[in-house]
Amino acid sequence: MPSFQTTRRVEFGDTDMAGIVHFANFFRYMEAAETEFLRTLGFSVAWTQDGRRVGFPRVSVACDYTKPALFGDLLTVTVTVEKVGRKSVTYRFDFTCGADAIATGRITSVFCRKGDDGGMESVELPPEIRVKLEG
Amino acid sequence: MPSFQTTRRVEFGDTDMAGIVHFANFFRYMEAAETEFLRTLGFSVAWTQDGRRVGFPRVSVACDYTKPALFGDLLTVTVTVEKVGRKSVTYRFDFTCGADAIATGRITSVFCRKGDDGGMESVELPPEIRVKLEG
Amino acid sequence: MPSFQTTRRVEFGDTDMAGIVHFANFFRYMEAAETEFLRTLGFSVAWTQDGRRVGFPRVSVACDYTKPALFGDLLTVTVTVEKVGRKSVTYRFDFTCGADAIATGRITSVFCRKGDDGGMESVELPPEIRVKLEG
Amino acid sequence: MPSFQTTRRVEFGDTDMAGIVHFANFFRYMEAAETEFLRTLGFSVAWTQDGRRVGFPRVSVACDYTKPALFGDLLTVTVTVEKVGRKSVTYRFDFTCGADAIATGRITSVFCRKGDDGGMESVELPPEIRVKLEG
Repeated sequence: MPSFQTTRRVEFGDTDMAGIVHFANFFRYMEAAETEFLRTLGFSVAWTQDGRRVGFPRVSVACDYTKPALFGDLLTVTVTVEKVGRKSVTYRFDFTCGADAIATGRITSVFCRKGDDGGMESVELPPEIRVKLEG
Repeated sequence: MPSFQTTRRVEFGDTDMAGIVHFANFFRYMEAAETEFLRTLGFSVAWTQDGRRVGFPRVSVACDYTKPALFGDLLTVTVTVEKVGRKSVTYRFDFTCGADAIATGRITSVFCRKGDDGGMESVELPPEIRVKLEG
Repeated sequence: MPSFQTTRRVEFGDTDMAGIVHFANFFRYMEAAETEFLRTLGFSVAWTQDGRRVGFPRVSVACDYTKPALFGDLLTVTVTVEKVGRKSVTYRFDFTCGADAIATGRITSVFCRKGDDGGMESVELPPEIRVKLEG
Repeated sequence: MPSFQTTRRVEFGDTDMAGIVHFANFFRYMEAAETEFLRTLGFSVAWTQDGRRVGFPRVSVACDYTKPALFGDLLTVTVTVEKVGRKSVTYRFDFTCGADAIATGRITSVFCRKGDDGGMESVELPPEIRVKLEG
């Protein structure tokens, strides 16, 4: 399974009054890293294909926090494809700061296409996406 | 010109490491108060009319901060229609906490309709909206 | 175990370009509901006790999404204390909109006190807090 | 007066249901660019000096929007020191995307130090900061 590494500088506005990155912001960090990773594969988290909106809405996410991240910290984010299902993909995100483990998150997304009724419906991962996610 | 009053409880996630509401969050508070106000008039900040998306994208916003707002504070937000133009509307938002003035903001929005090319184009305020905004 | 119910109106700024509430915002909704719940018990997610900062930093969070929430939706959020450990507490959050299940989340927080070195250290839940959480 | 240039990639979570960057997020972009700029000068938006918390809380901010920014856009952000007062500094932020002007914002911050009563009080800009801001 492929993996990808990027960095993220903690911004002032990411912190809360406890003086640390607000826990919910790690999910924004994950999504940005996921997007960057998908971009290296030639796609994204939401785009238009054959005139139809397609994308990867989330069905399940989680994060375990080990050590707080602080304003100015340069976090290393490692994205690993953990599982590719028939319609879904699960990523693991490992956040470190220098030698310190900060947090580990997971996002499971389902591949969806805009249906004729205007709603998003889950569909099988197209082979050209699957092959790239499976690396 | 009509005015409207609502309240907003400061949430933990609204604060930053300085221990106060992050300045950018006042714009979210303004937008929520504006939406609530527009709802009392029978419309919103974005909706569908005759099968076309219409809405009020912002062209100019500002905020002056007098005193910090803190986690748990119950802010009073007074929305006042300050100016109704041919295509636009300007609101003023006064934030107080008890007897304290906290901040004063402004949002100018332009009424837009989705054009045939898919982009939003500014159009004159429909009379039924204008009459309500002018109170 | 006690439970608590509140509501949350989806704001325009909570949505993303997919037209639905951005998944990370559910964690802000959870935290606000948790705070409201704790307030009914007489405490909060962060406060000062005997001159020391105490609070409930998060160690583990998760959310499963069933159906998208939309701008203007009035969500019902039910907070249930799922487990009270020696130093930690786990809440479950059930989001519904009318008859529809929207999402189910979990937050595990550890009770911490500011130590002499300035860092937060986990400590046993004080009996007066435990008894209230266990209902 | 000195100026500084950086870039910012629009993230999925920065957008709203109108399909464009939510207007309030430009203030986060400004703050991040300001922080990066201050870092090149050797300081920040909040730090500790001689054992006291100092920083630059905002007293006035504004933004004019010309053209929407979209998911994936690479924005160029130019920070210009527009005015250095006795206790305050005003920055202008010009956002462009390729040849398109996107938005122009302003932030006025006041230099503050934690006083003996625990509150932040505005003080004159120290000469070593003033000289750098005046370039």
